[in-house]
Amino acid sequence: MSEEIIGRRFQLSSFQIIILGFAGVILLGALLLMLPISTQEGCITPFNEALFTATSAVCVTGLVIHDTGSYWSAFGQTVILALIQIGGLGVVTVAASFALLSRRRISLMQRTTMQDAISAPNVGGIVRLTKFILWGTFLIEMIGALAMLPVFCRDYGWHGIWMAVFHSVSAFCNAGFDISGTAENLYPSLTGYAQNPMINITIMLLIIIGGIGFLTWEDIWENKLQFRRYRMQSKVILIFTLILIIFPAIFFFFADFAALPIEARLQAALFQSVTTRTAGFNTVNLSVMSGSSQGIMILLMLIGGSPGSTAGGMKTTTFAVLLANIVATYRQQDSAHFFDRRIDYNAIKLASTILTMYIALFFWGGIFISAYENLPLSSCLYETASALGTVGLTLGITPQLHVPSQLILILLMYLGRVGSLTLMYAALSGKKAVNSKLPLEKITIG
Amino acid sequence: MSEEIIGRRFQLSSFQIIILGFAGVILLGALLLMLPISTQEGCITPFNEALFTATSAVCVTGLVIHDTGSYWSAFGQTVILALIQIGGLGVVTVAASFALLSRRRISLMQRTTMQDAISAPNVGGIVRLTKFILWGTFLIEMIGALAMLPVFCRDYGWHGIWMAVFHSVSAFCNAGFDISGTAENLYPSLTGYAQNPMINITIMLLIIIGGIGFLTWEDIWENKLQFRRYRMQSKVILIFTLILIIFPAIFFFFADFAALPIEARLQAALFQSVTTRTAGFNTVNLSVMSGSSQGIMILLMLIGGSPGSTAGGMKTTTFAVLLANIVATYRQQDSAHFFDRRIDYNAIKLASTILTMYIALFFWGGIFISAYENLPLSSCLYETASALGTVGLTLGITPQLHVPSQLILILLMYLGRVGSLTLMYAALSGKKAVNSKLPLEKITIG
Ligand SMILES: [K+]
Ligand SMILES: [K+]
Repeated sequence: MSEEIIGRRFQLSSFQIIILGFAGVILLGALLLMLPISTQEGCITPFNEALFTATSAVCVTGLVIHDTGSYWSAFGQTVILALIQIGGLGVVTVAASFALLSRRRISLMQRTTMQDAISAPNVGGIVRLTKFILWGTFLIEMIGALAMLPVFCRDYGWHGIWMAVFHSVSAFCNAGFDISGTAENLYPSLTGYAQNPMINITIMLLIIIGGIGFLTWEDIWENKLQFRRYRMQSKVILIFTLILIIFPAIFFFFADFAALPIEARLQAALFQSVTTRTAGFNTVNLSVMSGSSQGIMILLMLIGGSPGSTAGGMKTTTFAVLLANIVATYRQQDSAHFFDRRIDYNAIKLASTILTMYIALFFWGGIFISAYENLPLSSCLYETASALGTVGLTLGITPQLHVPSQLILILLMYLGRVGSLTLMYAALSGKKAVNSKLPLEKITIG
Repeated sequence: MSEEIIGRRFQLSSFQIIILGFAGVILLGALLLMLPISTQEGCITPFNEALFTATSAVCVTGLVIHDTGSYWSAFGQTVILALIQIGGLGVVTVAASFALLSRRRISLMQRTTMQDAISAPNVGGIVRLTKFILWGTFLIEMIGALAMLPVFCRDYGWHGIWMAVFHSVSAFCNAGFDISGTAENLYPSLTGYAQNPMINITIMLLIIIGGIGFLTWEDIWENKLQFRRYRMQSKVILIFTLILIIFPAIFFFFADFAALPIEARLQAALFQSVTTRTAGFNTVNLSVMSGSSQGIMILLMLIGGSPGSTAGGMKTTTFAVLLANIVATYRQQDSAHFFDRRIDYNAIKLASTILTMYIALFFWGGIFISAYENLPLSSCLYETASALGTVGLTLGITPQLHVPSQLILILLMYLGRVGSLTLMYAALSGKKAVNSKLPLEKITIG
């Protein structure tokens, strides 16, 4: 009982820390970005624009209303990179702590059963895990930067070091910010390196590693290549990540890029597939892609990366659980399952909550912006999917939006990032069953 | 045990009856519509076009590739009307039988508890209920036809009787077929009566009565105006129907129809709101409505009417349960609830299955048609939402589609109609818990 109370107090305060912490970092970032020293021209940036940029950075989204490379100074870019790193690591660390707490709770409950070995945590504590995450992040980002250094130094001289570091961090954190823009070539993302295999492969690997989540790294670290010994969650994440990269890439290959030679076409299709489920870089002009490919991209943006990672979106596990639930319904099984492991009711309840909220916010935001800005619905839906999934891809309308639409996108980015953490918190909390005495009544569905 | 086996055998055969019965009626209808006698010009209609029309009629959708009024003869129109009536009543009756079986099962299980009075059925059996449904349908359709008779006879003479009967049946069955088209004015739907209050109000009432479902009629019939004594499901249906009519109407009023005088504008906004959640008539040209209103219409088409009715879509109860589940998740309650009645886990599981399948089919169909026909994604999504929700509204692209896209729409109409019945069957079946011995394992969601 006393442990329960301590547990709840700790959760409540950590809940407030998340909500307010993210908001605080965003506000601080916005104030720093307003300073004249943050821009190339030394002008003061209006609060709403600085707020948009800071939210986009902390929520690792990558939607921008000023070209990062040509508008912001080196100081401004450093602020943005710091916000990206804080936002990305913040989410991962908080999610890690929640997962640890939740696993501890499970394992305490199950101590009397035979399942202790399956779900008990094999990490010592939050501090040790945080260290693992910090070192892992630093190491991978450094390797990524070193791999891209030759290309960027060839093109930019000494400035190439900053380019390599910035894009490595931005890719690993799935942020999608780029600084290769100039006054003559705004918002280029990585279109200049569409056919450079070294940059393509490095960025793709950074995105994928950042997007599968720390729990999956830990599992791979512990069990190496013995796939069968992985946790069910890691298996689901790895398999769905693979599927969600391969099939869209095949679709993009056949539906688009017909003008490119075969090798470049393959590379473009694969890169656009990897980047869409949350990273937000692009190596081609997205607004000339076919309507059907844009539809696929909207779906991928909403699905997003894996839990406990720098990625956004509904998450691969949510998608997988929703599919498993369909199978269970039609097979008339009581519970959904994967790899001979049952998934409990709460996972279905949470997945259903997330899907409903995502669809509602996605449509509501798109309809609002379309009505307010008098823009085509499909472009606006692309933009809201991008904000909600913290992806950052755009058909080019974000820089032209008015303040109310900007505020909608800011809200969607914040909800897309912090919302899933609040849900994890809600799922973790022990407060339950306050309405279990209400009588049950049948309601027909479908 | 022996009752269990009998129950399962009955369900299995009723399951096959649904799947094959609908397909059989569609095929028979298609063959009849191919006959030269079915068309005004006495020509043979190609199989795929006859199949499309028959599917649209049996699934009470209303999407057409030939103008019903000017292409089909009186015989052809009679075939179509018969298919609409069979399709509409068929679904209602099957759903009624399922609901009865399911309530009996519940009440048998709960006989030892105190909740018998709440969920026990107060109708005698399937035969009595079917009679109630048939008489109710006949009576309401006749009243509807009589109410519209003066207007149609004024405009069409004796042919007005057929017009009144056809449109009354088509409205009550939420089919949305109309026969007011001529060779000079194809696919008019009810645009010619946009400002006629008698037609507007009658059609709207028929749509609403047809769309709230037989269980709700029964509840109103039993308890008259004593709202508090209604079943929880009836309360949810009535309240959500009201909300889903009023708010979209307000949105349409402000976002569109600026050229109309205030009274006509109100009427147009209200009619378009009522018709979208599955009936499929329209009194204005939909393709000139704003993108944001089209977005709202897509959502309404996917939500649809109420269970056990002639309406299609995910259903109001599914929508309501998904929202209640969000509330329960954030309040950390074990179960969702409405009006002090708990909703059980299976309702959440089913609602989640339906939402996922609808979203998947809706996007998949839209993306396929957009890719194949090279049409804008948003128009194609409008069309697939319309087919899946068996609505029948169109931005005008359906008649131009090629055969593969037609087949996609046929499939979506069939799944939209029969799919929810198969799900009800799956939920009803006693075969459960075959995987309950698998170990539980935690998976992180969101
Ligand atoms: K991003
Ligand atoms: K319809």
